[in-house]
Amino acid sequence: MSKLNFTVVDADELAKKAVTRSSSFGPNSPLKRLFQMVVIKRECYINDLWELVGHETVSTRDEKRDDMRRAIDWLLKRLAAIDVVAFGEHLGMQMTDEYQPIPMPRVIIGVLVHSPSKPTILVYGNLDVEEAVVGDGWGTDPFVMTEIGEYLYGRGVAMDKGPLLCWLNAIQAYMDAGVRLPVNIVFVIESMAHCGSLGLETVLKERISFFRNVSCVVMATRRWQSATTPGLIYGSRGLIYYHLEVQCCNRDLSSFEHGGTLFEALPDLFYLLSCLTDPQLNVLIEGTAHAHPVDMNTVRCADFSYEEFGDNLLVPRLPNRRHKHLALAKNWAMPHLSIHGIEGANSEADVRFVIPHKVIGKFSIALAPNQRPEDVTKALQKHLGQVWLQRASPNKMMLCEKFVIPSWSGRCNSPEYLAATRAMSKTYNVKPNFIRDGGSLLAPSIFQRVLKKNVVVLPIAENDIGGSPVNERISVDNYIKGSQMLAAFMWEYAQTNPESDFVDGMCMPKD
Amino acid sequence: MSKLNFTVVDADELAKKAVTRSSSFGPNSPLKRLFQMVVIKRECYINDLWELVGHETVSTRDEKRDDMRRAIDWLLKRLAAIDVVAFGEHLGMQMTDEYQPIPMPRVIIGVLVHSPSKPTILVYGNLDVEEAVVGDGWGTDPFVMTEIGEYLYGRGVAMDKGPLLCWLNAIQAYMDAGVRLPVNIVFVIESMAHCGSLGLETVLKERISFFRNVSCVVMATRRWQSATTPGLIYGSRGLIYYHLEVQCCNRDLSSFEHGGTLFEALPDLFYLLSCLTDPQLNVLIEGTAHAHPVDMNTVRCADFSYEEFGDNLLVPRLPNRRHKHLALAKNWAMPHLSIHGIEGANSEADVRFVIPHKVIGKFSIALAPNQRPEDVTKALQKHLGQVWLQRASPNKMMLCEKFVIPSWSGRCNSPEYLAATRAMSKTYNVKPNFIRDGGSLLAPSIFQRVLKKNVVVLPIAENDIGGSPVNERISVDNYIKGSQMLAAFMWEYAQTNPESDFVDGMCMPKD
Repeated sequence: MSKLNFTVVDADELAKKAVTRSSSFGPNSPLKRLFQMVVIKRECYINDLWELVGHETVSTRDEKRDDMRRAIDWLLKRLAAIDVVAFGEHLGMQMTDEYQPIPMPRVIIGVLVHSPSKPTILVYGNLDVEEAVVGDGWGTDPFVMTEIGEYLYGRGVAMDKGPLLCWLNAIQAYMDAGVRLPVNIVFVIESMAHCGSLGLETVLKERISFFRNVSCVVMATRRWQSATTPGLIYGSRGLIYYHLEVQCCNRDLSSFEHGGTLFEALPDLFYLLSCLTDPQLNVLIEGTAHAHPVDMNTVRCADFSYEEFGDNLLVPRLPNRRHKHLALAKNWAMPHLSIHGIEGANSEADVRFVIPHKVIGKFSIALAPNQRPEDVTKALQKHLGQVWLQRASPNKMMLCEKFVIPSWSGRCNSPEYLAATRAMSKTYNVKPNFIRDGGSLLAPSIFQRVLKKNVVVLPIAENDIGGSPVNERISVDNYIKGSQMLAAFMWEYAQTNPESDFVDGMCMPKD
Repeated sequence: MSKLNFTVVDADELAKKAVTRSSSFGPNSPLKRLFQMVVIKRECYINDLWELVGHETVSTRDEKRDDMRRAIDWLLKRLAAIDVVAFGEHLGMQMTDEYQPIPMPRVIIGVLVHSPSKPTILVYGNLDVEEAVVGDGWGTDPFVMTEIGEYLYGRGVAMDKGPLLCWLNAIQAYMDAGVRLPVNIVFVIESMAHCGSLGLETVLKERISFFRNVSCVVMATRRWQSATTPGLIYGSRGLIYYHLEVQCCNRDLSSFEHGGTLFEALPDLFYLLSCLTDPQLNVLIEGTAHAHPVDMNTVRCADFSYEEFGDNLLVPRLPNRRHKHLALAKNWAMPHLSIHGIEGANSEADVRFVIPHKVIGKFSIALAPNQRPEDVTKALQKHLGQVWLQRASPNKMMLCEKFVIPSWSGRCNSPEYLAATRAMSKTYNVKPNFIRDGGSLLAPSIFQRVLKKNVVVLPIAENDIGGSPVNERISVDNYIKGSQMLAAFMWEYAQTNPESDFVDGMCMPKD
């Protein structure tokens, strides 16, 4: 059902041009001094990350709000130390699942303005992290950062405490090197990124005029596609998260006593879920399976070993005819449906002869960049309605759209993308891949929609092939080079002149 | 696929005959005195149950073995008080899941022999109970028996601590009434019934000659089919419990980063599980869907309101064309497949974009009494093999038979069934239903197979329509009348003369 459209553009040129245009990296260039300063302060920066990881900033757990408060205070102090004028904006109260009001974590807004004549970048970051429990398979305490070999282990080291501190390290490097910061910076740092960025949109909207001078929005998050070649992210798919609920009666029953006396809920649910994809996992929902044109060039350039990926994970046979570009295209820009789990049935190892009465299938559909969420949900409702009619089950079936993350795409043909390309080229000595992200990033889409500014995402962490949500890690090298790269980005961004001709004829992924 | 065969026999006659033959229930009959004695000691008996429920005898939880030890000691003391010579037979050690050896709970063996000329009944019981956690929805502490209205609430009050104590109460009544016990009794009381009766078979086999004089095996467990009419259970279906595992790689992945790059495990599993039954939940496995002939008479007599059942549970529409006899026949004697849950996927309420790498579908097939477990597993393997071949998934699929409970059927045309019928008729003033049990009872099948003795199951608890595994309860009336009924059973059993003609021409369910 899905078709791939390739358009051939030549992004290689971009990187080449970026490198050849660089004139600031001579032996005494400011960039070299900045890079050296970062290396000198290496231990301080690692220690900062150790301190920040120690705060259990799990936004999805209500009882961690005190940790969150301390982490925000910690960061405000650190920002003040590098001359950022920052404060925590209170967002009021939030209701817990038990209907208890608890305060929302503050959103940090900070400014570091040197001169109105310099361009102003908005740096977005988040302090909160995903849940982490030792019992899930962590080899170390997730909230005590531990250096093992060349890696730092701990929750948030790669997403997104490490990248956030890289910005602070980069600014510190300018101070240490005695180089004036070439850009103005506005910080927006939230702590509810793992709760759907609750409140972020309001903060932006209420201060819309405050952000009017911002030239672009930059964030350091996610990972490269490759283990060795840096990548810069120019867009991500949208996503709709669904609950599909089937209920057969008003309480759990025993298959001993009640097996055969009613239509059970789980078989209905499994049947419905089975009708959403074909064996190749193509989405079977009519009218929603069209693909976004994928830039053949970016896919081709992407440094990603599909075979190694498969071997590493012991995947019995790779789909997509083992073609890297098909797999990447599918992950970057085509609709995809994943089933994540089932609520309400027995998930424990014990034996229970239960007939679950209400079960919820949890799945998400990643959207091609040109798919409208409302169209997909409408088509899904229709599809499920038809299947349910055929099934003729008397049970209650309900589809619930839990949340939507719209897709976003950056304007690659812009100073910020050129600056990012140059900064990465100079830091890593290799031209970066232009990549899309298979995941759905909420913050870029909010910034793009509310502030109408171009967004560029600069990951600093290499792809940990087969890396799992537990034992999160980042290499010391990635952390240090990431700080250098952000320092370089600010430098390069100031060098770019939006009025100059460098954007013309540039071969970048289509916007 | 499934067909029902009805054979018409007239079980009504049995009960009538039982009542008319009774000559021992005059104003001064011993039975009347026994019944009165039970009523007089009512508060003592309730207190005993309160004490026993207080021991957390959860056999599936290793850390509860001390509670188990104390409960066994408590029962040994109680048995000694009614002149039963009892001891706890040590079964050696057992390995926990963490490979720690822990002692198995002792099996209590007790004898109460008055005279070799009297018949000897073997009374089976179990001390262990199902897991109970307040958080699962208990309104009271499950291990503190609580009297609310006419009910006693607590784990084990109905299964099977209450019924076990009824035997002790019944014997106590004989002592209190100054009536000599009319039968010899051998007790076998295990505490691993919820762990597949581990060790029970060994104990029986090692003492096979000890049990040679036993005439029949009697146990009080399960519930009636009806809320008002007592039932005696003359058989139950077999059961096979399966794990169906699908694995797609060696660790959980993120649908963000990996969606589209491999064949996921959950869609495969749901597809396989969907192919096992049709929308009416008929088992689709070839050659296994034949039904056991069901006694039309027992089904017809069974006091069970299907409509009330449906209304109580808010079932949107009842299957089996709302016919009670079809539903009961299906539950009693036809194969049935229930899916209980999924291991390895996200079952929590939180949002995780996980692609589970190894998922296990847990389901059981209840067997018609004439189905051989090995035939069913073989057919299931073949069926899944064909479906899997069509699916052409590269993932690993594995079917694992976790355990088997064979079906069993009592010989209804026997003194023990007549005595049971009489005892129930006299206690409850209504002829009992002859019922099969939809559940699979392991102990009767072990006793029948190892000792080659006839088994009769005498439930004392009314069917709590829609009763759930939490908030287990028994009415005080059921508990007290149950004690009376077991006293009556012993009396009636002694009256029956296996050599007499009462068994001829009796219209009972076919053996």
